[in-house]
Amino acid sequence: MSAGATLAGWASRLTLADVPPDVQAQACAHLVDGLGTAVAAATTGAAAPAVDVATGLGGPPEATIIGTAHRGSAFAAAMANGTLVHALDFDDTHAAGLVHATAIVLPVAFAVGEERGSSGTEVLAAAIAGYELVCRLAAAAPQSFHARGAHPTSVCGAVAAALVAGKLSGLSQQQMEDAIGIAVSQASGVMEFLHTGGSTKQFHAGWAAGSGIIAARLAAAGLAGPRAGLEGEFGLYRVFADRTPDLAVLTDDLGGAWQLDEITIKPYPSCQLMHASLDAAKDLRATVGDIAGLRDVVAAVPSTAAFIVCEPRVQKVKPSSPYDAKFSLPWSVAAMLVDGVVGLSTYATDQLDRPELTALAARITHEIVPYDGPDAEAPGRLRARTHDGRHIEALVARSSGSPGNPLGADGLRDKLRGNLGSESAADSMIAAVNDLASAPDVGSVMRLVSTYSGVRRG
Amino acid sequence: MSAGATLAGWASRLTLADVPPDVQAQACAHLVDGLGTAVAAATTGAAAPAVDVATGLGGPPEATIIGTAHRGSAFAAAMANGTLVHALDFDDTHAAGLVHATAIVLPVAFAVGEERGSSGTEVLAAAIAGYELVCRLAAAAPQSFHARGAHPTSVCGAVAAALVAGKLSGLSQQQMEDAIGIAVSQASGVMEFLHTGGSTKQFHAGWAAGSGIIAARLAAAGLAGPRAGLEGEFGLYRVFADRTPDLAVLTDDLGGAWQLDEITIKPYPSCQLMHASLDAAKDLRATVGDIAGLRDVVAAVPSTAAFIVCEPRVQKVKPSSPYDAKFSLPWSVAAMLVDGVVGLSTYATDQLDRPELTALAARITHEIVPYDGPDAEAPGRLRARTHDGRHIEALVARSSGSPGNPLGADGLRDKLRGNLGSESAADSMIAAVNDLASAPDVGSVMRLVSTYSGVRRG
Repeated sequence: MSAGATLAGWASRLTLADVPPDVQAQACAHLVDGLGTAVAAATTGAAAPAVDVATGLGGPPEATIIGTAHRGSAFAAAMANGTLVHALDFDDTHAAGLVHATAIVLPVAFAVGEERGSSGTEVLAAAIAGYELVCRLAAAAPQSFHARGAHPTSVCGAVAAALVAGKLSGLSQQQMEDAIGIAVSQASGVMEFLHTGGSTKQFHAGWAAGSGIIAARLAAAGLAGPRAGLEGEFGLYRVFADRTPDLAVLTDDLGGAWQLDEITIKPYPSCQLMHASLDAAKDLRATVGDIAGLRDVVAAVPSTAAFIVCEPRVQKVKPSSPYDAKFSLPWSVAAMLVDGVVGLSTYATDQLDRPELTALAARITHEIVPYDGPDAEAPGRLRARTHDGRHIEALVARSSGSPGNPLGADGLRDKLRGNLGSESAADSMIAAVNDLASAPDVGSVMRLVSTYSGVRRG
Repeated sequence: MSAGATLAGWASRLTLADVPPDVQAQACAHLVDGLGTAVAAATTGAAAPAVDVATGLGGPPEATIIGTAHRGSAFAAAMANGTLVHALDFDDTHAAGLVHATAIVLPVAFAVGEERGSSGTEVLAAAIAGYELVCRLAAAAPQSFHARGAHPTSVCGAVAAALVAGKLSGLSQQQMEDAIGIAVSQASGVMEFLHTGGSTKQFHAGWAAGSGIIAARLAAAGLAGPRAGLEGEFGLYRVFADRTPDLAVLTDDLGGAWQLDEITIKPYPSCQLMHASLDAAKDLRATVGDIAGLRDVVAAVPSTAAFIVCEPRVQKVKPSSPYDAKFSLPWSVAAMLVDGVVGLSTYATDQLDRPELTALAARITHEIVPYDGPDAEAPGRLRARTHDGRHIEALVARSSGSPGNPLGADGLRDKLRGNLGSESAADSMIAAVNDLASAPDVGSVMRLVSTYSGVRRG
C-alpha cells in the first residue's frame, strides 16, 4: 500500500467522533488565529496583489475572499485567503516540519466547505485531517525541503490541500489517491526570496491551497495520478527533498499522535526560527536596564536556522524590505531590545529605516550551536556584554506560543484583538469558530470576515 | 544583469520587424500544428478532465476553450488549451531542451491575446518570443531536468508563459522581471507518471500556461519576484535541474540564433525519443517483407532515452495505459512493424490489448549506445534477425519531422487534416494562421477552433 493510499484512506474516514475534544479545541484555536492574521493582512493591504488577481478571476460565487464582500470560485478564494493568512508571517508553525499549517488548511476547508454547503462538523473534521496531513508530510523530511531550496508549506501544502478539498467533495478512495498524485505535479514554491528578495513567499501558501482544489476537481473529473506520487523515484520527496520520506512520521499512529498538539501560535509576526531569541531579548531588556549600555550580543543559533535568519549578514543587519526584516534575527532582536515589543508595526515598510536599529543589529552576531531537534524548537540564548563590563545571559527553553510554552486562551484573544483591531469582533469570531461543530454551515464564520474591513473602519 | 532581466528586456522589445520571414512562417506552422493536436484531443475527449474543470472555473468571458463555445478567464482557457495541445503527445518538441514548446506558447498567446484584444501582429510576436524563451530555458540545462525528475515543459514553461502573458499585457521591464521570479515559485511538474502511471503529464502544460498568466497578473498588481529567480542559489535551475544554467544557451544571440528553426513537428503521437526508431521500423518493414519471419530486433538507444522509453521493461512490453504505450519503444516499434503506420488509433485505449503486438514487443530489445548530442536528435537504428537467418539493419539519421528531415508544407497539411478530420477545415485553419500578421485580432483563428467539434460532427 502506498503512503498516499494510507493518508487518503485515513483522511476520508475521519469524523469528529474520532477526535478528542482537546484536539478539536486546538483546531478551533488555530483557525481563529488564522482568520485573525488574514484579516490583519486584508486591512493593511499586505496581500493586495493576490486578492486583486483572485477577484479578477471571477467565477461562480462559491466562496468568500476574506476582507471583501466578493465571492468567486473556491479556487480563487483559496488562492487569496491562503496568501492572506500567510502574508504577515504571523500565522502558526509546526516545528518538526517548519510548515505553516493554517495557511493551507483554513483557506481550503472554508472555501470548499462554503462551495459545497458542508456542515460545520464536516468542515472542522476536514480541517483537522488537513492539519495532521500537512504537518506529517513536511515532518517526514525535516529540514530537507529547505536545504534543497523548496518551501515545504507550499510543496507539502498542495498535497494536503487536495485531500482537504477531496474529503469535503466526497471523493472515492481511488480519486483521493489520484488527487495526491496530481497535486504532486502542482507542488511548487522555492526559497530564492531569502537570497534575492521579492514577496513571493506569501503567495506560496495561496497557490498551494488553490492547486489542491484543482487537483481534487481533476481527480473527480477522471484525471489519474501516479500511484507513488509521494515516495516514488520521481515523486514529491525525491524531487523536492532529495530523500525518501520517513514513513513512520508520515503514516504511523494517524489519529493517535495528533500533530495539532505540536503547532506553535506565533506571538511575533516574523520567522519562527527567531522567536525564542526574541523572547530572550525581552528578558535581556528587563535585566540590562539601559539598552544604550549594551556593547554587543551573541545569539546561539543552530546552523540550519542561521542560514535562514542570520545570513547573508549584510542583508540581515540592514533589511531592505519587510520580508528581509521578518527573516533577520539581528534586526528583530534589536527591535525587541529597543522597543520592548515586536508587532505588526515593527515591520511596516516605513519603519525599516531606523538608524538606531541598524546600529544595534550590527553589534548582534551569532554563534552556531548544535541542536538535536527541529530548529524551531531550539532554545533562545543571548549572551550580552555591557560597556561597564557586565556579562548577562538570557535563556528561554521554548519560545512563547509553542506547545511547551503556550499563549493560552488569553494570549490568543489578545493577539486576535490586535489583528482585528476590535475586542468585540475578536470575541464574536472566537464564539463563531468554537460553535462551528454545531453550525449548519460556515456562513456564521465567513460573514464575520467578509464584512470585516467595514467593521474595522467603523 | 540577471539572466531574467536579459530575457525580459529582449521579450518586451521584440516586434515582428525583428523576425525574418522564414522564422515567422515556422511560428505559424507550429501554431497550426498545435491547433490541430488540440482539436484532435478535444474531439476525442483526451483532455476532458482539464476542460471540465476549466469550464467550471467560469470567470469573465476573456478567452475561448478550444473545442467548445465556452469563454472563461484567460487563466482557465490557457489551462484547458495547454492540456489539449499536449494531451495526445502529438505536439512538437525542441530536441535540445526536450521541451514541448507549442503546448506552452499557443495557449498563452491566444488566451491573453483574446483577453486583451491584441492584434494578430502582437500575438505572433509574443508567440515567437515565447518559442525562443521556452526552448532556451530548457536547453540551458539539457537532460538535467529529466534526470532530477522534473518536467522541463512545465517547469520552464511557467516562466516562458509569464513572459508571453506579460508582453501582451504591456508589463514594464521591472514587472517582467518580477513575473519571472513569481513564475519560478509556481514551476511544477514531476516525471513520476513514467514509473507509476497516471495521466498527469498532459496537465503539466496547461497548468504551466495558466500559472504564467497568474504570474504576469500578480506582477502587474505589485507582487515582487526575487531578482535571481533563474540562476540564484534557490532558483529554477538549482532546485529543478541541480545545476547552474548554461548562460550562453540561455541568453547569447537572442534574435539571431532562432530556436524556432530547431523544433520538430511530430509525425507520430508518441514520445519524440522513439521517433527515429519508428522511422527505421517503417524501413525495416519494407525490407523484411513478412513480419512473421522476424526473430528479434535490437534498437540502438542512448542511455538517457532508454530510461524513458525502454525501462522498466515489463511495463514497456505490455503497456497498461495509452501513456505507457506512447512511452514504450518496443511496443510502438512493434505496432509500426505490424501495421505499417503509427497514429492516433494505435494508442486508443481499446487497442492496447493486442496479443500480436505484445508478443512482438517481447522480442524487441535495446542496446545502449553513446550519442554526443540531444537524445531526441539521435539516429534510429534497428538490427533485426529473421528466422531464415538473415541480418537486416535499418538506419535513419534524423527522425522525420525534425529540422534535418522536415515534414514540409504537405506533410503538415496531411497531419492537420488527420487531426481535424476534414480537408477544408485544415485549409481554412492554415489560411487563418498564415494571415495572422494582418488580422485585427485572433478572432479569425479562435472562431475556427471554438466551433470545431460541430464542424467535425457535421
